[in-house]
Amino acid sequence: MRGQKGRKNAKGPTDRSAMLMLETPKEMQAVSETWRGSGQEIGFVPTMGALHEGHLSLFRRAQEESDRVVASIFVNPTQFGANEDFDTYPRRLRRDRERLEEVGCDALFVPSVEAMYGTSSPNVDSGERPHVEVGRIGHLWEGLERPGHFRGVATVVAMLFHAVLPHRAYFGEKDYQQLKVIQNMARSLLFGIEIVGCPTVRESDGLAMSSRNAYLSEEEREAAIKLYQALNAAAELARKGARDASVLARKMHDICDTEPLVELQYAAVVEAETLTPLECVDEHPARAIVAAHVGTTHLVDNIELPSP
Amino acid sequence: MRGQKGRKNAKGPTDRSAMLMLETPKEMQAVSETWRGSGQEIGFVPTMGALHEGHLSLFRRAQEESDRVVASIFVNPTQFGANEDFDTYPRRLRRDRERLEEVGCDALFVPSVEAMYGTSSPNVDSGERPHVEVGRIGHLWEGLERPGHFRGVATVVAMLFHAVLPHRAYFGEKDYQQLKVIQNMARSLLFGIEIVGCPTVRESDGLAMSSRNAYLSEEEREAAIKLYQALNAAAELARKGARDASVLARKMHDICDTEPLVELQYAAVVEAETLTPLECVDEHPARAIVAAHVGTTHLVDNIELPSP
Repeated sequence: MRGQKGRKNAKGPTDRSAMLMLETPKEMQAVSETWRGSGQEIGFVPTMGALHEGHLSLFRRAQEESDRVVASIFVNPTQFGANEDFDTYPRRLRRDRERLEEVGCDALFVPSVEAMYGTSSPNVDSGERPHVEVGRIGHLWEGLERPGHFRGVATVVAMLFHAVLPHRAYFGEKDYQQLKVIQNMARSLLFGIEIVGCPTVRESDGLAMSSRNAYLSEEEREAAIKLYQALNAAAELARKGARDASVLARKMHDICDTEPLVELQYAAVVEAETLTPLECVDEHPARAIVAAHVGTTHLVDNIELPSP
Repeated sequence: MRGQKGRKNAKGPTDRSAMLMLETPKEMQAVSETWRGSGQEIGFVPTMGALHEGHLSLFRRAQEESDRVVASIFVNPTQFGANEDFDTYPRRLRRDRERLEEVGCDALFVPSVEAMYGTSSPNVDSGERPHVEVGRIGHLWEGLERPGHFRGVATVVAMLFHAVLPHRAYFGEKDYQQLKVIQNMARSLLFGIEIVGCPTVRESDGLAMSSRNAYLSEEEREAAIKLYQALNAAAELARKGARDASVLARKMHDICDTEPLVELQYAAVVEAETLTPLECVDEHPARAIVAAHVGTTHLVDNIELPSP
């Protein structure tokens, strides 16, 4: 079907602002069915809004590879814990919409919580309603720090996939475990959707772009670069031949420990597909991952480790 | 899209035997994508094979409502308990295939366990792999008799839906709780697929058709009609004005208790959508449900109860 690409140009640059806004799954499905029915391929970028350059890089990649690009903005309550930042998560719909029109997004899906879940206070943790369980990979790292988080993520992504019916979906590598959880779910449940991971986009000093960076005070913003410095130092050690995972982890801890505003939650060397801890970096693809509280803000980051 | 119906006739009666056989999800998806891409609607009948008149009624209904009809035959290991009849479940592919060609089925999806799960011994109970949890409705009745059963059913049906990409899917009312589990899953996870329940087809003496009836000895086959007699008696009592659920349940128990070969597991009056037990039959749609072991064979049946 890739051969059908290029139709998009038929829209012409003057149609740039004609981005469709859909508020219910049924409306979204109808639009996607029409596009699919005429042989057009759909690229999908699910987001929680507060769009930054990291998101925009996903849209650019989606546009290169598909005839139509759909964005969703949905701050999903079921992936936030009771004491997390669901209520305060940045919501900037007007600005996000302008940015999406600028990058030439074809449709924006912005459902309410009720439109998605049929209730304004859905709960997938109690086991009352149907949901997706992500399996073993969801019980590591962020799954331990944020119980139920990946259950909520996988459930809403499955729902969004059913609403948007994409051929490909784009996720940032910044949330590396989430990317692997979604790839694993899509493969196991036969979604038939290609899950594309895209490189983390960073600020000039190396901090991974994240909507949550907006929470940081000036001091915290300074302190937060320790995460990237730690990852970089681990990758540099591996490049120089260090194979012992505990040595790399120690290095990451040492660097973060120099900054009192950074409370490290984990810093580990893991197998790149399953995220199981590695004792040494060998021929398997490996990743260094970190998570920390910087002030009250939860940040994650990761880096590919060079193979021997 | 219903307006597109009628294209099917273009195949002509001489093409009757040209039923496609697909063995992998990718092959199946490619066929369905082609049909959807030309505006044709797909009706889907998932089965475990050993087809009987009950199944064939689903195919006839599917053909009335869709341009293309897809069958699947897959004896799904993850919905059988460790001591259940996965190994002995009747497998009659050659005969099933002939029947499907006779009724004019367009495609038969017959994947191996490996093609579906990537392994010959999949396990969704351990929580290792991604799967679908069905929520509260799955923890009643059959969910108690067969722990993990509906988890396996919902997971494989979600996978089959992703492989077959149907507009509608057809399930028999004989497995009434399964029908409601699937309807609930499809609605909650936004599958965008209409789940159609079709009336139970019965033998001349009232026994609900089931592939498992083949297990019954002559004496057990005789005894098994008690289930339908019990359901009928309950419906008759309700028709005459009985409202107390315990009276209806007592009646069903009494009838089954006259037959030593029938070991009743449950006989209950339930709310028709949620399957929660009712204390009395009021204006809510209600259903009488039964399950029993007849010899070593597990049978279920149910009947609609008339409203006051």
